Amino acid sequence: MSSLVVYGAAYSVYVRIVRLVLEEKQADYLLEPVDIFADEGVPAGYLERHPFGKIPAIAHDGFRLYETVAITQYLDEVLPGPALMPDAPQARARVRQSIAVLDSYGYRPFVWDLFVERVRKPQEGGTSDAAVIAAGIEKSRKCLKALADLRDGDAFFFGDRPSLADCHAYPMLRYMQLAPEGAALLEEAGWPLRFLEAMDRRPSVAATRSPLEPQD
Amino acid sequence: MSSLVVYGAAYSVYVRIVRLVLEEKQADYLLEPVDIFADEGVPAGYLERHPFGKIPAIAHDGFRLYETVAITQYLDEVLPGPALMPDAPQARARVRQSIAVLDSYGYRPFVWDLFVERVRKPQEGGTSDAAVIAAGIEKSRKCLKALADLRDGDAFFFGDRPSLADCHAYPMLRYMQLAPEGAALLEEAGWPLRFLEAMDRRPSVAATRSPLEPQD
Repeated sequence: MSSLVVYGAAYSVYVRIVRLVLEEKQADYLLEPVDIFADEGVPAGYLERHPFGKIPAIAHDGFRLYETVAITQYLDEVLPGPALMPDAPQARARVRQSIAVLDSYGYRPFVWDLFVERVRKPQEGGTSDAAVIAAGIEKSRKCLKALADLRDGDAFFFGDRPSLADCHAYPMLRYMQLAPEGAALLEEAGWPLRFLEAMDRRPSVAATRSPLEPQD
Repeated sequence: MSSLVVYGAAYSVYVRIVRLVLEEKQADYLLEPVDIFADEGVPAGYLERHPFGKIPAIAHDGFRLYETVAITQYLDEVLPGPALMPDAPQARARVRQSIAVLDSYGYRPFVWDLFVERVRKPQEGGTSDAAVIAAGIEKSRKCLKALADLRDGDAFFFGDRPSLADCHAYPMLRYMQLAPEGAALLEEAGWPLRFLEAMDRRPSVAATRSPLEPQD
């Protein structure tokens, strides 16, 4: 029996990406909590697992790995269960490209400029900055358009079942949806609503719910 | 005969990464110049190839692709020539992890905080900011240490021949070496000098020389 530990926290977009992959692969794993925002800083022991102090990191039978894009492709390659990467090189390229676009151009506006600025800041006693949100709307719209041009699926990104691209996109778009401006952008684009609805029916999503989402 | 076009400019770190891969694969390709810093902005036609206006983008028999990590893995998968990814999943993970570490934690300090700040700014009539360089030294040292912990090769990153990680690291470390502070850090770490020397003997490096390097 192999041992698989994910180090991180359930609110984290990137931790959830890795957990969605594990749930889609129907793998057993342990989520080991790491508080990178502790008053005393990133726990020293954790810096041995991730020298830059980000989450997640994993350990698989003693093999230590950090950086989400390396982790998810590794897990897809070594774990049994459905393949989350297509076989054809052009299709594989589109999955990796979508993930890179999400990381380079989506994560910041979707999660920070919309969700954190509009939803989290007021919850924590701060005031939303309208200029940040306005700029985030434009950047988000542009990124959603770029993603639309890469997708070939109706609900899922590619074909009719989830890939690593879907696992990567879901946590970001879900947080974005919690901001009214984000929800409006997703509706305007159309495809993200079909995507989120399809993902929301998956056990992987239910099993990795974020504590920052509204609790039913 | 297949057609392969790289859109970009020879000074660009990321364009050179893609070209190093193509040279290592001994592929024929055309470098089509794109000036993303033109007075009138990114050429409109190019935005159809890369909606975010960065370089490089490629077209391979009509298949258009942008985002370097997607491009290099695609080219390695479809082109004949030596494989630039290992076969074993853990080794593949280390290559992808090294590339992600270079992108997330290396590129900015190596290239912008050291090379651009120390070398390019004065060449263009500006003044180097000592605080930027000092911070860049610390960030670079930390990243070089993290990379050392991932490598298993003596000169090349993994094993005894180049991988996608080597193609990714070379253009960044070469620029860094042109700043005195960068050269000192590379010497301090040790392995980067062996790496650069091994790469400097490869025809791929000679064929992709940057116009910003000293001309012999």
